[in-house]
Amino acid sequence: MRALLLGRFQPFHKGHLKIVKDIAMDAEYLVIAIGSAQESHSLENPFTAGERYTMISKVLKAEGIENYFLVTMEDLHRYAAWVSHVVSQTPTFDVVYAHNPLSIRLFTEAGYKVVELELYEPEKCSGTEVRRRIIAGENWKELVPKEVAEIIEEVNGVERLQDLAERG
Amino acid sequence: MRALLLGRFQPFHKGHLKIVKDIAMDAEYLVIAIGSAQESHSLENPFTAGERYTMISKVLKAEGIENYFLVTMEDLHRYAAWVSHVVSQTPTFDVVYAHNPLSIRLFTEAGYKVVELELYEPEKCSGTEVRRRIIAGENWKELVPKEVAEIIEEVNGVERLQDLAERG
Amino acid sequence: MRALLLGRFQPFHKGHLKIVKDIAMDAEYLVIAIGSAQESHSLENPFTAGERYTMISKVLKAEGIENYFLVTMEDLHRYAAWVSHVVSQTPTFDVVYAHNPLSIRLFTEAGYKVVELELYEPEKCSGTEVRRRIIAGENWKELVPKEVAEIIEEVNGVERLQDLAERG
Amino acid sequence: MRALLLGRFQPFHKGHLKIVKDIAMDAEYLVIAIGSAQESHSLENPFTAGERYTMISKVLKAEGIENYFLVTMEDLHRYAAWVSHVVSQTPTFDVVYAHNPLSIRLFTEAGYKVVELELYEPEKCSGTEVRRRIIAGENWKELVPKEVAEIIEEVNGVERLQDLAERG
Amino acid sequence: MRALLLGRFQPFHKGHLKIVKDIAMDAEYLVIAIGSAQESHSLENPFTAGERYTMISKVLKAEGIENYFLVTMEDLHRYAAWVSHVVSQTPTFDVVYAHNPLSIRLFTEAGYKVVELELYEPEKCSGTEVRRRIIAGENWKELVPKEVAEIIEEVNGVERLQDLAERG
Amino acid sequence: MRALLLGRFQPFHKGHLKIVKDIAMDAEYLVIAIGSAQESHSLENPFTAGERYTMISKVLKAEGIENYFLVTMEDLHRYAAWVSHVVSQTPTFDVVYAHNPLSIRLFTEAGYKVVELELYEPEKCSGTEVRRRIIAGENWKELVPKEVAEIIEEVNGVERLQDLAERG
Repeated sequence: MRALLLGRFQPFHKGHLKIVKDIAMDAEYLVIAIGSAQESHSLENPFTAGERYTMISKVLKAEGIENYFLVTMEDLHRYAAWVSHVVSQTPTFDVVYAHNPLSIRLFTEAGYKVVELELYEPEKCSGTEVRRRIIAGENWKELVPKEVAEIIEEVNGVERLQDLAERG
Repeated sequence: MRALLLGRFQPFHKGHLKIVKDIAMDAEYLVIAIGSAQESHSLENPFTAGERYTMISKVLKAEGIENYFLVTMEDLHRYAAWVSHVVSQTPTFDVVYAHNPLSIRLFTEAGYKVVELELYEPEKCSGTEVRRRIIAGENWKELVPKEVAEIIEEVNGVERLQDLAERG
Repeated sequence: MRALLLGRFQPFHKGHLKIVKDIAMDAEYLVIAIGSAQESHSLENPFTAGERYTMISKVLKAEGIENYFLVTMEDLHRYAAWVSHVVSQTPTFDVVYAHNPLSIRLFTEAGYKVVELELYEPEKCSGTEVRRRIIAGENWKELVPKEVAEIIEEVNGVERLQDLAERG
Repeated sequence: MRALLLGRFQPFHKGHLKIVKDIAMDAEYLVIAIGSAQESHSLENPFTAGERYTMISKVLKAEGIENYFLVTMEDLHRYAAWVSHVVSQTPTFDVVYAHNPLSIRLFTEAGYKVVELELYEPEKCSGTEVRRRIIAGENWKELVPKEVAEIIEEVNGVERLQDLAERG
Repeated sequence: MRALLLGRFQPFHKGHLKIVKDIAMDAEYLVIAIGSAQESHSLENPFTAGERYTMISKVLKAEGIENYFLVTMEDLHRYAAWVSHVVSQTPTFDVVYAHNPLSIRLFTEAGYKVVELELYEPEKCSGTEVRRRIIAGENWKELVPKEVAEIIEEVNGVERLQDLAERG
Repeated sequence: MRALLLGRFQPFHKGHLKIVKDIAMDAEYLVIAIGSAQESHSLENPFTAGERYTMISKVLKAEGIENYFLVTMEDLHRYAAWVSHVVSQTPTFDVVYAHNPLSIRLFTEAGYKVVELELYEPEKCSGTEVRRRIIAGENWKELVPKEVAEIIEEVNGVERLQDLAERG
């Protein structure tokens, strides 16, 4: 099985890591597609594609996971052409793992096998919760792998999110 | 040194491989940016970003090179914002290797150290020559790593280029 | 009178049909412009431009209406140029029928005669209500011509909308 | 058979008409897709999508051809997503008629049956030749159906092309 | 000091004027950048870039302020490249005056000196309040310089906003 | 008369200055629209919109010309909507001065009075010739106002163009 995992990874958290580990164990390889690559510096999408790419690379290296490809993917804003766009930008895959209902539907209509991701402890393991805690000054580090926390601090991500939230 | 190598890699050939090996030996890591990612199926840009990503991954795995990051990069068509765009889409870098005069100029104006790539045997090691030979039915396989030749055949790349050339 | 009717037709319902019949009776011809043609697979815009085109064609054929032109129209996201864009994409017209306040205002400023559409039984004849009923599993078929119901079923439109609504 | 005919129709000429008549005779219906719909007022693409739509409608009405759908189609500039884009914008089809090598290749890779159009008397029946004659002040009217000639005159198409050619 | 003032100026009101006067007094010159230049005819952005440009020019002429440059700036929708885009579209500047948290953050990350604008009497001096009063038919003229009121009336701006608000 | 002058001004040369002086003398005011504002760092369009804006401002200040407005204008790539776009981005005008056949045609079709600019000494006063001389290391300064020469040197424009030309 060659798997595709779609996400925005704003940021990559422990729930994502668990999913990646589970899939990578079963798959020949896993293509991790960082969506909305053109976005950054917003409350929903604070980190650049490059920052997210670096986060995931460092975590997976630390975990010893090697059978994956990491790609960034800009939004197309034409959903009927989205599957073709993804296919053209990634190594080939035959199973799709996704959480977003739109992606699930589009890949299903295109005839792919799609696995709907169950969120692992959604009240804790979600990008929304990580971002909320960063803005609120609560303990967000426990929700992400330590390499992610390091990068967020390196790029002044806490200050960035808090600044954006001030009157956003 | 953390290096950035910019190219379109249409396709990745032995000249590219030599450059990558040289840089990877000296660098902490090398970011390989596949440009014009939105392009494919044209005489200048026959292969999709996903096909090019797969080519490079397979070759570097076979070569045992591990200290690199591979990213795809869409054209922005606003050159004054190009450097910022590249920076936002890639792991950080401090030296830029490029062949294209525009990239060289833009990164130079932005204050980066830029190394202008000397083409290694340009009459043989260029994407233009590889594509010409594919269309003409000449020996193109000697110009590319064998993993690249395999992928080109898997995706019917010879037929694709010859069809596009017919009356293009 | 050569009329333009602007709408998104998500989907084409009995209220639309009544409007088309009324205009077509008075007009030399009616240009029906399917707006937001690039949209599909969302809760607001579930159907592709091609699906909407097919719906309208089939209904009007069944109704024996022939004096119309059917065009699809992508959003421009520059309202000051919208009228020029519409004019460039359609057969000529001199009266505009629209419901959307933006279209009404833009064509009025451009000097066109504009007729503001009164919704016929708005609590029943609106795309919003049709989509709500499809998602809720209520009786939506009574709101649309039977050719539209057939196409929605052919393209698995009920499943599509319900899937998109699940956690949208 | 439900056929798709792709073209820019700048303008629709007698060669196009012959093709349409041949296909319409065999097909359940024919989808005529007017490509590069966003283009106009250039030497290659002098006529707007609306003008081209009107030309084709009038000619086919005069010919008594009824089993066709006429759609306009903007360029996507992402060839790997082009087939999906076309499919999303048109009634369904199963055979593609095209002259352009890119379209032929893309629909072939997508698994469609593709018929490569032989140009009928290419030295006379081509948009390039019609435009050349208009600019040169030669006899262009013999190359197009009379409804097309009428529309070109109505929109001052001769003057438009000659003006654009002056120093273009 | 060469200052940049960023805003949408929908419309230019007395609070803006006070800010411009304060900055212009201290600065060698002031670059006034009219953002979201592609927007118009919406409740948030009723006036075209051209109308906003004219408003500001007339007011500053009446005020006798001469040391300013006025530019229009389209949105880029790629925040990581926004600073480069602004820099490329304006005369050079070294201090940025802004109210929007995103602009403040982006220019801060890029190393600029940024002055966060305090709104002067925000309950009265805000574009939101001016637009609300126009729609509600309340006294909006007291909030804007008289040249702005004249232009809004010339372009039928009251009617435009009220029409857009009707069912927006 | 309120005039619009369209150009790319790559760079602003003595021919442009003569035209501006002639028009400004007759007009109530002159709107100078810097086209292709998104372009820079290419052989055809070496200077950013901001650099071009600064050039023109400085020259006209030195000349004592005050009755003008200076705007930048991005390309729209939809010619049928171009006039509307220009109108929405500029103070109002009633006569158009242009050299480019496309602009002349589009504004003529839109019903504007258009004056076709005669080039003043075209072998010397053209952007093409200025750029050619800069690249060739010939005397280009005699072709441009001295403020333009100063800005080109400040932004290292000679080096920029020569670098871009090297293998472009």
